[in-house]
Amino acid sequence: MSTVSRVVNPSLLRIEADYLLETANDPRSVAETMAGEQSCGTFVSVPGETPELKARSAARIERLEMLDEPVAAPSLPTTARVGPATLRRALVTLSWPIENLGPSLPNLLATVAGNLFELRAVTGLRLLDIRLPQAFADAYPGPRFGVAGTRRLAGVQDGPIIGTIIKPSVGFGPDETAALVQTLCEGGIDFIKDDELQGDGPHCPFDDRVRAVMRVVNDHAERTGKKVMVAFNLTGELDQMRRRHDLVRDLGGTCVMASLNSVGLVGMIELARMSELPIHAHRNGWGYLTRHPLLGWSYVAWQKIWRLAGADHMHVNGLANKFSETNDSVVASARTCLTPLFPDKPCLAMPVFSSGQTVLQAPGTYAALGSADLIVTAGGGIMAHPDGPAAGVAALRQAWQAAVSGIPLDRYARDHRELALALGDAA
Amino acid sequence: MSTVSRVVNPSLLRIEADYLLETANDPRSVAETMAGEQSCGTFVSVPGETPELKARSAARIERLEMLDEPVAAPSLPTTARVGPATLRRALVTLSWPIENLGPSLPNLLATVAGNLFELRAVTGLRLLDIRLPQAFADAYPGPRFGVAGTRRLAGVQDGPIIGTIIKPSVGFGPDETAALVQTLCEGGIDFIKDDELQGDGPHCPFDDRVRAVMRVVNDHAERTGKKVMVAFNLTGELDQMRRRHDLVRDLGGTCVMASLNSVGLVGMIELARMSELPIHAHRNGWGYLTRHPLLGWSYVAWQKIWRLAGADHMHVNGLANKFSETNDSVVASARTCLTPLFPDKPCLAMPVFSSGQTVLQAPGTYAALGSADLIVTAGGGIMAHPDGPAAGVAALRQAWQAAVSGIPLDRYARDHRELALALGDAA
Repeated sequence: MSTVSRVVNPSLLRIEADYLLETANDPRSVAETMAGEQSCGTFVSVPGETPELKARSAARIERLEMLDEPVAAPSLPTTARVGPATLRRALVTLSWPIENLGPSLPNLLATVAGNLFELRAVTGLRLLDIRLPQAFADAYPGPRFGVAGTRRLAGVQDGPIIGTIIKPSVGFGPDETAALVQTLCEGGIDFIKDDELQGDGPHCPFDDRVRAVMRVVNDHAERTGKKVMVAFNLTGELDQMRRRHDLVRDLGGTCVMASLNSVGLVGMIELARMSELPIHAHRNGWGYLTRHPLLGWSYVAWQKIWRLAGADHMHVNGLANKFSETNDSVVASARTCLTPLFPDKPCLAMPVFSSGQTVLQAPGTYAALGSADLIVTAGGGIMAHPDGPAAGVAALRQAWQAAVSGIPLDRYARDHRELALALGDAA
Repeated sequence: MSTVSRVVNPSLLRIEADYLLETANDPRSVAETMAGEQSCGTFVSVPGETPELKARSAARIERLEMLDEPVAAPSLPTTARVGPATLRRALVTLSWPIENLGPSLPNLLATVAGNLFELRAVTGLRLLDIRLPQAFADAYPGPRFGVAGTRRLAGVQDGPIIGTIIKPSVGFGPDETAALVQTLCEGGIDFIKDDELQGDGPHCPFDDRVRAVMRVVNDHAERTGKKVMVAFNLTGELDQMRRRHDLVRDLGGTCVMASLNSVGLVGMIELARMSELPIHAHRNGWGYLTRHPLLGWSYVAWQKIWRLAGADHMHVNGLANKFSETNDSVVASARTCLTPLFPDKPCLAMPVFSSGQTVLQAPGTYAALGSADLIVTAGGGIMAHPDGPAAGVAALRQAWQAAVSGIPLDRYARDHRELALALGDAA
């Protein structure tokens, strides 16, 4: 499925949204219903809907492109009678005057992704992309750190930021967590993140965990000059997030993490406005928004909202991942994070690769992305190295050096022992 | 699909979640993967995952009930090889110790609805219900007004609260909106709401709209003693919502409205903690969370989160609606809003019926719900009455009197002229 992300036209005065539509009705008439329902109309014309009012406020159909692919059965159930012979798919672009809502991200959601997916005539509807007028760029901060700020704080000028996740996901107390962090710091890691299940439970209170971990991180930094970036999961209510953020900052921490679908848009906007640290944005729950190809959100559309709100790092899964996502989809997600949102305000976020990542994915990831401006988090890919975590980190770094230099892994492995061992192990 | 909502066991110490699972693998092994992935495990066992740690933190399978229905094809795409012959569905209940996360709604989402829907072995997964330990009741306010508070402020002691929506959805300025509100107040309406597309756009700024509308509402209240409840859509960022709420309160308004999927959970929690008015919770966008029957959220599970966070009114669509939802689904949603969340803290929210509602749905709605503790919003059902909006309101009220008294509409219409005309019109 094509989800081409276009850079916003600087003169764009209307909000635009692209949809993949499936219907057994006339697609143009369904697109008209969508435009009406999401602007000045309702299912039927109402008395106040004058021509002047429509000219001022109506959503417009900017594009309607029929797709040829045959559709065997309705993708989504409907109470409407659907003759499969008439099912068709189309790409639809709608636009709205920004005066309907102003440059407000929360209100944007109700406009481009509100009561549309329920429409009876719709047997499939997916939001593929959105394009926003410059007023949105002026109204929101975007990532405050992004690629450059993250590299500076992590002390990694070139190549990917090599990271890992604290596992087990939950169960460790603060001291056990800190002990693992110690091992990882000594292994030369750049980045460590909490699991999204680890927040502030009684088993492992946030404050105790941060204190224990930052003691290790700061000691290591004092000894070696390298301060490992740890993304502490501060997901919670606003006051909790504020307090937790301040603790991390005060202890010299350099990153916080939040689950986007847990905090929601207003929570993220508030967090970004107050945060003095990069925000590692976790997308857990993303599956329920996207897993069906004819429903919900494409990542291309979705990540624009969160980048504009202030996400510095965005999870994109990984090549050859252990989930159900295809490599093409992962690559499209990663590329879109590194595609400017506005000409004068690119809002680039670092894509975060995870799930079953080893040395093997480095060449393919680099080839697909054309950039090493990314975070790669590997669990087994680091911890399971036959010579231990330090060798695991070294092997991953070597794999990326090979990829960036255009040298095949097996050739680079000839004089890079850690990579050679990892390849032997991974083969 | 059965989505029975059970009242929480007061002694429940673990969080429970019910899922509908579809897989071509062994359902028990998939349930074990789900439990592992969402607690102390990962795809493979990790070194720190000791028996003691597992005993303390692991998620448990509480129930696994195979369903007999044949599955012809995988409901969701997957990169796994799926033999259709082995596709099966099961009801799965998982449980977690509350010590993993504490009574935190944002962290609950990552636990019960996190990285599960992406699992490769899963070709369908839907969260059907959740049950929470008492600690959650202690940690969150729940609806501050609910049924009783809303009835008191709306001045409606019996029967449904009869309401309508400002249409056109957008396009009216403040004065045009106030003029329509005047007509509706004179028509004897109880409740009016902004459309979810109407927030604070330049075409109809929130402050101007509230001032113009409250002038009408307050004048009407002074003349008649009846203060119509208007749900002003304050959806926006936190400071905006706070300021807008205060303006509505200061002008004597009695309700605010927020779009749940726009503000998100932290936004809603903050709004509820500060609000001195009932919160009319709009579910626009709900379709992308629920429209596919083997993906996402059931309303039974979803509405518990928002009620506990503080929603006073919850949208449930309506019988014979103009969307794709079945009547059974609408009834299940409405009933669950009126089912206690905790024995000592019921957190009841008023269900809001909408979409093509007329006098015709009153008997069926009352029969299915067994209660008139609800808000019904009708557009054409009121405005299109041949004798005008006042007769439209009267007819809807009469239809509900008939329904509650168990009298067929056509019989009640014999000596209720407005209902008779509405029936003639609606037939």
